[in-house]
Parts: sequence; C-alpha cells; structure tokens
Amino acid sequence: MTFRKLKKIERPTPADIDIAQSVAPLPIDEVAAAAGIASSELELYGPHKAKVRLQLLERLADAPDGHLVVVTGITPTRFGEGKSTTTVGLSQALGAHAGQRVFTCVRQPSQGPTFGIKGGAAGGGYAQVIPMEEFNLHLTGDLHAITAANNLLAAALDARMFHEATQSDEALYRRLTEKPFSLVMRRRLAKLGIDKTEAVALSPEERRRFARLDIDPDTIAVRRVLDVNDRFLRGIRVGMAETERGHQRDTGFDITVASEIMAILALTTSLSDMRERLGRIVVAAQRGTGEPITADDLGVSGALTVLMRDAIMPNLMQTLEGTPVFVHAGPFANIAHGNSSVLADRMALKLVGGDGYVLTEAGFGADIGFEKFVHIKCRASGCRPAAAVLVVTLRALEMHGGPEGGVRAGAESNMARHIENVRKFGVPCIVALNRFRDDTDEALQTVCAVARAHGAYDAVVAAHFGEGGAGAVALAEAVMRACNEPHPPAFRMLYPLAMNLRDKVQVIAREIYRAKEVTFAPEAERKLEWYESRGYGRLPICVAKTQYSFSHDPARFGAPTDFVLPIRDVRLSAGAEFVYPLVGSIQTIPGLPTRPAFYDIDLDPMSGRIVGMS
Amino acid sequence: MTFRKLKKIERPTPADIDIAQSVAPLPIDEVAAAAGIASSELELYGPHKAKVRLQLLERLADAPDGHLVVVTGITPTRFGEGKSTTTVGLSQALGAHAGQRVFTCVRQPSQGPTFGIKGGAAGGGYAQVIPMEEFNLHLTGDLHAITAANNLLAAALDARMFHEATQSDEALYRRLTEKPFSLVMRRRLAKLGIDKTEAVALSPEERRRFARLDIDPDTIAVRRVLDVNDRFLRGIRVGMAETERGHQRDTGFDITVASEIMAILALTTSLSDMRERLGRIVVAAQRGTGEPITADDLGVSGALTVLMRDAIMPNLMQTLEGTPVFVHAGPFANIAHGNSSVLADRMALKLVGGDGYVLTEAGFGADIGFEKFVHIKCRASGCRPAAAVLVVTLRALEMHGGPEGGVRAGAESNMARHIENVRKFGVPCIVALNRFRDDTDEALQTVCAVARAHGAYDAVVAAHFGEGGAGAVALAEAVMRACNEPHPPAFRMLYPLAMNLRDKVQVIAREIYRAKEVTFAPEAERKLEWYESRGYGRLPICVAKTQYSFSHDPARFGAPTDFVLPIRDVRLSAGAEFVYPLVGSIQTIPGLPTRPAFYDIDLDPMSGRIVGMS
Repeated sequence: MTFRKLKKIERPTPADIDIAQSVAPLPIDEVAAAAGIASSELELYGPHKAKVRLQLLERLADAPDGHLVVVTGITPTRFGEGKSTTTVGLSQALGAHAGQRVFTCVRQPSQGPTFGIKGGAAGGGYAQVIPMEEFNLHLTGDLHAITAANNLLAAALDARMFHEATQSDEALYRRLTEKPFSLVMRRRLAKLGIDKTEAVALSPEERRRFARLDIDPDTIAVRRVLDVNDRFLRGIRVGMAETERGHQRDTGFDITVASEIMAILALTTSLSDMRERLGRIVVAAQRGTGEPITADDLGVSGALTVLMRDAIMPNLMQTLEGTPVFVHAGPFANIAHGNSSVLADRMALKLVGGDGYVLTEAGFGADIGFEKFVHIKCRASGCRPAAAVLVVTLRALEMHGGPEGGVRAGAESNMARHIENVRKFGVPCIVALNRFRDDTDEALQTVCAVARAHGAYDAVVAAHFGEGGAGAVALAEAVMRACNEPHPPAFRMLYPLAMNLRDKVQVIAREIYRAKEVTFAPEAERKLEWYESRGYGRLPICVAKTQYSFSHDPARFGAPTDFVLPIRDVRLSAGAEFVYPLVGSIQTIPGLPTRPAFYDIDLDPMSGRIVGMS
Repeated sequence: MTFRKLKKIERPTPADIDIAQSVAPLPIDEVAAAAGIASSELELYGPHKAKVRLQLLERLADAPDGHLVVVTGITPTRFGEGKSTTTVGLSQALGAHAGQRVFTCVRQPSQGPTFGIKGGAAGGGYAQVIPMEEFNLHLTGDLHAITAANNLLAAALDARMFHEATQSDEALYRRLTEKPFSLVMRRRLAKLGIDKTEAVALSPEERRRFARLDIDPDTIAVRRVLDVNDRFLRGIRVGMAETERGHQRDTGFDITVASEIMAILALTTSLSDMRERLGRIVVAAQRGTGEPITADDLGVSGALTVLMRDAIMPNLMQTLEGTPVFVHAGPFANIAHGNSSVLADRMALKLVGGDGYVLTEAGFGADIGFEKFVHIKCRASGCRPAAAVLVVTLRALEMHGGPEGGVRAGAESNMARHIENVRKFGVPCIVALNRFRDDTDEALQTVCAVARAHGAYDAVVAAHFGEGGAGAVALAEAVMRACNEPHPPAFRMLYPLAMNLRDKVQVIAREIYRAKEVTFAPEAERKLEWYESRGYGRLPICVAKTQYSFSHDPARFGAPTDFVLPIRDVRLSAGAEFVYPLVGSIQTIPGLPTRPAFYDIDLDPMSGRIVGMS
C-alpha cells in the first residue's frame, strides 16, 4: 500500500480542522488501488470519497481473512477517552510506520450533533480521517437514505391506519387490488396462508384478513427520524390538519442513527439479506390477535430496500497518513449495538489478506460496545476478533479512583474489570494508554503495570494524538504480537442464542455489569413473553444502558457490585435481530444548547473552505 | 459532442423503466468531456452522475452564450402534457440528429411522490434522462441537504424561543457569549448598530437587544420539511415531551421542495450570493417592533451554507441518446417559481457556446411557469430566452374546448391565449404538438393552423415519446430557425421591480390571467404593507395559483375572462427574493393513496435491479 508519513508535526497540537485541512488527501482512487480494490468495484463520490461494490466479496471469496482487532475502552468520562483517535492512530502506525497491510472500519457519525454540542468524530489531532468536513456532514448520503426509508415506513403506517379507519372492507380491498398482487403482497398472502394469485379469487373473509391490518395504536413501535438536534420533535401530535379528520396520534422523532434501519444496515450481510430484514421490521401488533405487523404487511419493504440500495456499499476514505478507512453505518449506541458495519469488516478482512490487520471500533465502554460487538455483530458476521485494544486515560482513571484512591484505584477497579471482561470472551486485551500533555511518566507506568498484573496481554502508552502514527508504533507492535501468538486463547460467547431472553439479560448483567440481581418491570415481563411466543426468543440482547457506569447509575464510578439492575421496558428490533431492554430512560434525540456549535460554523465564500467546525 | 442515436425502437412503446434500463448509459466522464467540461471541474457520483464545479463559470467567463430555449405548456390536464418529455426529446433531436451543441436543464423531482401516486419525472418513452432510478431517487443528495438545512433552521428557531423563555437576560447573554463573537454574530451586531467587538463591552441594554430576538409565535414563517408523502405531518403540535416544559406550538411539515432553501438554490448565482440569501431568510417578526428576524439573527446561516456547499453544484446526467443534462433544483411550482437553477442555465449556455442551444423547462402552464421564468428567473440570471416551446396535446385542447367546441375551440381559446401571452414578452412561441397514438393527422394539422393564425412562430407535430430524437427533428428545425432570425423581437418584462407589490400582482392578473379584478383579503393587505415598510417592496411576485386554469378555479377551462382573482394571503421569501400571494389553499405535502406506488417498487436482490418504478 502507498502510505505516507506525516511531514510536519506542530506543538502544541493545532485545532483538528486546521490539521485536517493542512494535509492534501490522496485521490481516493489511488487509495483504493493501493488497498487492492478493483476500479470496477469503485463508485467515486467526488475526489475523496467512494463507495465499494459488494461484488468485491465474490471476487475475494477465497482470500484469507486478516486479523480483526476491536478497539474498545474503559468506562469513559463525559469528554470521551479517544477510542476513535486510537483506532485511526493505530491504523496510521500499522500502515505508514510498521509497513503492514491495514484497514480501519469506523462508524459514520450523526450529522445533527455537529451543529449542536459535540464536535466531529473523525478522530482528532494527528490521527484523523480526512476530509473531516465530509466525514462529519453528508458523506455519501447513507444517513439521508435511512431518514427517507424510515419516514416512508412511518408515513405508510399512519396512512394505512387512516385508510382502514375511513373505508369499508370492500372499498379497501378494491383499491388495494386495483393493480395485480405485487411481490410484497404475495408475501402477505403467504403469511396468511392464502394460496391464490388473483384478487378476484379471494373469499370475503380472506379479503378482510388481507386488507385489514387492524393496527393497535398502543403498540406502534415506529417513530419518525431526522438527523437534526431538534428537541421540540421529541414529543409531537400528528394528524392535526383538517384533512386527517380528527385521526390524531401522539408520537415523536428520534435522531436518524436511532432508526432500526441503521441497525439493519450495520448488521446486514448482503442485498438479499437486507431485503428480508427490512421486511421483518415489526411496526405494531394487530388488535385482538397480537399478531406482529411488519413492513412486509404494509407493502413498503421493497421500496425501503430500493431507497437503501446504495447505502449498503461501504464508504472508502483515508487517514491523515493515507491508510484506507471504511466509514459505514453508525447505529445509535444508546439503543442499538453501536458498531460499524459487518460488510465493511468483511470486505476489509479480505482486502488486507492473511497477514493484514483490520481495526474496528466498538462504541461506548467495553461493558456495552465490546459485549455487543461479540454477541451481536460477531454473530451476524461470523468474524472473530484476534485481539482487543482497551483505550484508557489517566483522566478517566482518576474519576473512577475518586479523590482518595486516584489513578491507581481507578486502574485496579474499572480498568481491571474491563480487562477481565474482555478475557472472558477468550480475546487478548491490550491496554492503550492515551497520553495527554500533562500526564507524568510515573503515573503512566503505574497504570501499565496494573494492567499487566490484571491480565492485560500488554499495556503501552500511545501518543498518536500529538504525533500521528509515529506515536502509536509501540501499540502497533503489541497488537501484531498478540495477533500472531502461536497458541491464541479460544474465542467464546457468554450465552447461546437458544437461552431464553430473560436468562440472556441475566448473563450480561451478572457476567459483565456484575449486578447482584436483575428486576423486570411488569411491562417488560409482558413484552418478553410476547416476543418469546411470537418466535423472537432466539434473538440476542442489546441492553440500552448508560455508558458512564457498569451499573445503571451514571454517578457510580469504578467497579460497583452491590446493585440491582432495573429493566424498565423492552423493545424489539426484529429486522436488525435483537431485543433491547431499557435500563432507565434514554434520550433518543438531542437538543441545541443556548450557543450551539452552528454559531461558529461558516463558509469562506471565496475559497469555499469551511471554518469553525471542531 | 459524442451522441448516439437510439438503435432500436419498439412498438407499442414499452414501459419507461424498461426503455431506460435497456440503454447502457455512457460513462458520465465521457459525456462531460464531450460537453467541454474539464476533468478538474467534475466530481463523479458513481459512474452515471457527476457534479460540476462552479469554477467552470470563471474559466468560460468570456465565452459567448448559446441560445436559451424555454419549454412551457398550455393549461394541462391532470395527466400532464409532456413538457419534460418534450424538453428531453428536443434535446435528443438537436444533439443526436441535427448535430448541434445542446444542453438540457431540468428540475430535480421530489423523491417522496415516487412512492405515492405520481410516476417519475425523467421524461418518458424514448425521451428520458437516464438512469431514471437515480434521477428519481437520491441523485447526489441535494434534496437531502435542503431537508437538513431547513430543519436545522426550524430547530434553531424553536430552541432559541425555548432558551429565551426559560432564561434571564443575563444568563442568555452569558451563554451566547461563552465564546467570542463569531462571524454571524457580528452580522447581528451590525444590524443593531452596535459597533463593539468584545462581549464585555456591551451595555445591559445592548446585551438585551442582542440576546433577545423575542419572536412573535404568531408570525413564524418556517415549517419543517421532509421528502415523504406524509399527510399526518401536515398539521402537528411540537414540544409535547416533558423536557420542553409545556412550550408547545402548532406547526407542520411541507414537502422538501417547498422549502425556501430550494427556491434559493434555484435562484442563486454563486456561493457568496447563496450565503447572503440564506442569511436573509425571514423566519418571524419580533414581538412589538415587528422587526423581521432572519436566519442571520438566529446565528445559523453559516451552518446552512455549509450544509448546502455541495448542493450548489449542478448535477450532470444524460438523455437516452447521450446528450448532456443538468438536473438541478426543483422548487415547488405550487408556491415557488417552479424553474430549474440559474447556475445550470448559465453553465450550460457557456458550454454550448454561441451556436449552441440550451433547453430549460418551466413548470406548470405558461401562465405560471413561463411568467415566473421571465419575471423571477431571468431577473436573477440575467439570461434572455431566444424562443419558447409551447407544449400542446389534443387531449388537453379537447378538455378546454368542451364537449361542444372540441379540439378547435380549445386551440382557439386556451392555446391561443398562451401564445399571445408568450409574445407579450417579446419571445417567439413555437407550438410543439405532442403526438399520441390515436391522434388523427387532420386534428393535428388543424391545431397547427390555428396556432400559426394566432401568432405562433411555427407549429409542428412531435413524436419523440414513441421515436426518440428522430421524432422531434421538425421541432428542432423550427427552434433553430427561430433562434437564428436576423431581426428577433425585443425581449421585455411586463412590470418593473420599482412598481409596488399590489400593482405587480395586478399586472400579472390582468395581463396574463386576464382577471377583470383582483381582491386582497385583509390579512394579505396587512402583510403587503408590512413588506413594503420593511424594504421588501422591490421583490418580484410569485403567485401561488392552480395550474389547471387561467383563473383560480381549476374547473374553468379554456380562456376565462370574467373572474375576480381573490388573494387570500401573501408570504415572503426574502432569501429567494420574491413575495408570493396565495390564491385559494395550496396543499404543501401530499399524502399516500390506499395503494401507493411503493407496493410495486421492489429490488431484484440478485441483480440489484429496481423493478416496478414508473
């Protein structure tokens, strides 16, 4: 591959956007060619972004997979501990400095928060994905496709309820069958056990069953989405215009990345698999029968697939040192699994080949992101991590250790437990201690020693933020050693899918969070039973829990043990294929502060250069 | 240019999507090179779409402009009379058959209706823009960018009102000035006449004036938008979640193309012009003072520009016969001017050069689309049409003539008046009679004769739908003759901008619609006065009126004269730069029928081919 080391490093480290704009990106077709992507597999989106066609997987079907390395972290502070930065910096070290074949797979960030509080998510300092403006904004439109698809599904649901409420069985059936049964209608006929192909052949009872979804409004599971920090859309009442004749309903918007369609994009393995998953999305239950009503039943799943046809292709970008990056899918870590796409990982593993490395990031701390990476993503992808990198900062350890215990206590509690958790899965855990300017060598070495004492494969200080790939060479070497161990530990899941949903939640709560007990609210109990009875009992679990503590209480640092984990509610992502219990309340669309980031974001009209983005 | 005639024509004409998928598109970089676009000016979006950089206008600043030909139509039926088809077919005729340099500029269609009732808008039959799926779906994301920008503006407005309602002057000012005054804040300071650069320097009174926009909720002019046919969003109540503490408000969504930002995209002439226009959008009036509150005042206009940075570049596609097409901007003809972008026209005129032709389509009938093309778009662009093509069908003339008068009466009333109207502007009018399968030669020739008798420059039968460019060669020849007349008529506007708003409305109503009188509702009167008093009196007028009649009553066919045009309300697009009177009620977001088009749209998962789109 044709990487290039950074030419010039400034101190103190300049602003992210200034560093990002100071390096001219390589033409993306050159990055692609160096990574082994054929030009017929590439769809350019401007000079610095491209989509890669899935046919690459067919061409490389027999190629050996590279080593998959997952980057995770300890329980973070509100500032984040630099997982993305480490993922990118390690990639630069492996590629541009250690001469290895390497690919980095990261999540696409939500666009809305760029204009609110949070800065971008392209890494930081001298470890970034570039161009960072394009990374943080539209990219190639995947988030927009999800918004369009999700909202078509929601519109189809409300329109269908309206038409059912205002038309007789006969009129409804007549209008639905104005044209011959379409592909998706035949799916509904099959589900109903009606083996007829002509609309006229159905009996009145069959017509009624076909045409009346009879959706129970209290069970509706679909909300609309927008990729905007719009707090006033959290709770809304729709249908208030006269044309809707009083058919009002209370609902709300989530941020786009919280859409189930995003989780589907992240977990799907092919176009036909995506088609099936989209069709299986459960939008509500039928009144009386409790039968799940799906996107297939609404007749909209083919159209959703068409809207998502391009989004399924991973997006190719590059790091500051020219190593290739797939940016693909960014499911909301609060209510979904928070991992980038299965397809990007699979393609990258083939592209780097048997000796190469693929780095992929798992959102939040290892109690959430890494656990879901294994139990949900690895199950969907069939891939196995060769090693995990646990990102640690002194700042976070200090918080966990508290005013009395300090860094050492934080390391011995929070970090040690994350190391232990990772090792439960049979995955070697390498601690990457992200160096900050004021960190002392002594404190850093103490933490490394604690990490090794608690079972870390190795622990190294990394300085990629201020130095680029050169600052993460020691980390790269540790990763390479771990991946090439002659006798690696045996990888394992902590629960089998055959276990019932309740027990699976218990396993995660006890083994990973270390709760002494789990309680289920009556609503949660009821839904779990319903899921089991409708055939969703074999899905994995995706707990929606705060990232700021092993427990459900964000104020409990360190390694709490004496808590009871309360499951307030559970939800189903039948298309993405997981059940997600809610622990506490989860905000699914952020708001704007009094001075949002947008005040500082502007465009130099002469150069077209974006200013003020961070 | 390297065009290629269609190889095979089938009869009867196959479905649009089958024709579209039967022709392999040329690589878009070849189309670009043939059209004279430098590779450094091209940003590919996959193999068949590209954006063209505005720097092309600098390179070709001194090149002569080609002939600008605007395609318009008579008052249409509900099926449409084929303006897009004619625009595309004429392009194929001029380029692939008559050997001329030609460029076609069309609007980007709304994505939402593709899944509702309406079919695509890429032309039809053997006169289409391809790939038609990409034309009708995401294209290069311009509509998505508008959705994002419009909704960021709306979120900023509601969030600001919330923060003002829940914070003291002091707290508000302190939070707003946590960071130094940004570029956009300095605009507000300048507007308020405060000549200070440090936050601490402002007096308490100046701080209050700076921080309190004090928006009058009854005057809010911004609605949210989505590109989805979602009738339940027409009227909504926002702010119903507990976190918004009871600050509820009734509002609604429009379809994305109805956003003022779309109209701005269509009328802007450069990146810096777009920045200024976005900043000038009036979102509401201040309580008490009635001062217009703008996107600049909200501090969000720089961010809006950043979101629209790529959307400003026209999108290059091709016709079935390989002639180049710009697809750029599609302002909702119901409430905006319904014309494609000024930038696409300007670039195309330079690219074809002095002897070439640029075809551009104006939405709706000539009473609306052509009038706005001249008074709004030509004012913004500075371009002048050399000729207008008036699209006519026997079907529409029959409707206008009624059961007794028939086609001839329809031609002598509706068509004749449109010809007369076009000629009022000093533009030669060529009638293109769109041939349908069952049309008789006799009827067609009758209409041609009537057209010539009523002042048409020429009238020809066109059969591009069934024959491609070969079917529109006679039309192409008529257009070429008209554009090369040695003594062309003098182009003129029907009203000067200096005229007051009321009088401008009167001119359009009397000269174009032929109303005998215009009435203004009190609300309309009040607003017109407010606009005049705030400096918006010099804007052009964009009447929002039904397209199905010269009058405001869609049931009045032919050429009515004895009607009073009632102006119910008026609105302001200060960024797009027009005032739009509302005649009757305008639906700004469509709904889904009982069997929407999405039932038939699906994806062949094996080939990835889209099926069922029309």
